Amino acid sequence: MTSPEGFSIRRTRKEDYEGVLSTLKSLTTVGTISRSHFESIVSYWDSIRLLNARKQEGGELGYKYNNFVIVDDHNGQVAATGNIIIEQKLIHECGLVGHIEDISVSEKYQGKKLGKFLIDKLTSVGFANGCYKIILDCDRKNVKFYEKCGYEEAGVEMRIRSNL
Amino acid sequence: MTSPEGFSIRRTRKEDYEGVLSTLKSLTTVGTISRSHFESIVSYWDSIRLLNARKQEGGELGYKYNNFVIVDDHNGQVAATGNIIIEQKLIHECGLVGHIEDISVSEKYQGKKLGKFLIDKLTSVGFANGCYKIILDCDRKNVKFYEKCGYEEAGVEMRIRSNL
Ligand SMILES: CC(C)(COP(=O)(O)OP(=O)(O)OC[C@H]1O[C@@H](n2cnc3c(N)ncnc32)[C@H](O)[C@@H]1OP(=O)(O)O)[C@@H](O)C(=O)NCCC(=O)NCCS
Ligand SMILES: CC(C)(COP(=O)(O)OP(=O)(O)OC[C@H]1O[C@@H](n2cnc3c(N)ncnc32)[C@H](O)[C@@H]1OP(=O)(O)O)[C@@H](O)C(=O)NCCC(=O)NCCS
Repeated sequence: MTSPEGFSIRRTRKEDYEGVLSTLKSLTTVGTISRSHFESIVSYWDSIRLLNARKQEGGELGYKYNNFVIVDDHNGQVAATGNIIIEQKLIHECGLVGHIEDISVSEKYQGKKLGKFLIDKLTSVGFANGCYKIILDCDRKNVKFYEKCGYEEAGVEMRIRSNL
Repeated sequence: MTSPEGFSIRRTRKEDYEGVLSTLKSLTTVGTISRSHFESIVSYWDSIRLLNARKQEGGELGYKYNNFVIVDDHNGQVAATGNIIIEQKLIHECGLVGHIEDISVSEKYQGKKLGKFLIDKLTSVGFANGCYKIILDCDRKNVKFYEKCGYEEAGVEMRIRSNL
């Protein structure tokens, strides 16, 4: 997996406030989030470790939440963002499962293979942490994209919304 | 939501070792898990709190992992188990999403409305913690069951397996 020319990928940091929030607007409603609220969530994500972080743990491994950004090296802008959250189960010998969530490529950066690069990276982070599988839910219209990333259809997503 | 006669529901405890593991065998491969490994996972689940646990927090609220058991009051056996894991997002004004996982009713207790009672309980725990939606992935053959619990089809589950 090589980084597309001119872009780098890394864990999200507190200073990514504007970039991450504006990128997420390609995906859905973000709402009003203050800088301090954003920072508290990044700190929270960074504070939760896996039960038995892998021995070969690099700076990047051993976290429950793994929110990444792809940055455009030319202007420092956040081009894409996404998360893989690692669940500690009992089944499969106390296995770990990765959940990919909130994948978003900024509109002006779509169609440049950044989405695929982001999924490849999150997938490799999940497997390096020891996940036996990684799953995600998507709209039918995005199935082909995830198939190009090596994923296959596995089941049905069911949902209930709060009526508050 | 009333508890079916003769059954109670509560968070999983360390002493549920045999009951939970044997119940999970109705769902999938569990493998060999020592008592101490089980206990360390229950402690881990109990140790991770939500960022801003709700003010009206009772003994049951404010946890990221919420693994519950339904117990048969007559013999103390675990009849069913399941988890709702609460994800801290940025989107939807730093919203929370519940992920229901590893629902399992022991074979001899199936068809007695315990599955529905378990889903109702996990759903109410998710909403009491402030989730704006709750999702789960299932086989096509279980869609009708989740529809009876108030869920509706929302998307496609995609998966990749580790080749280790
Ligand atoms: C969907 C999304 C993540 C794809 O990222 P991207 O950077 O635009 O896509 P890429 O350039 O990496 O595409 C990789 C491959 O998938 C294909 N592809 C991308 N989106 C596709 C789609 N919706 N349907 C079919 N193929 C698609 C591309 O054509 C490309 O194929 P190729 O390698 O044969 O040329 C991005 O467009 C996006 O953020 N959209 C809005 C938010 C969203 O829908 N998020 C996903 C929620 S499940
Ligand atoms: C699927 C499962 C959780 C259902 O629990 P249960 O206690 O047997 O089901 P309940 O008695 O609560 O059923 C509630 C209602 O759903 C219906 N129902 C249950 N399973 C169903 C199915 N697979 N298809 C259609 N309807 C179903 C029941 O008939 C009942 O309907 P009613 O209220 O109209 O009488 C349970 O059978 C089980 O653990 N199975 C094996 C493991 C598994 O598949 N887990 C789910 C993984 S996604």
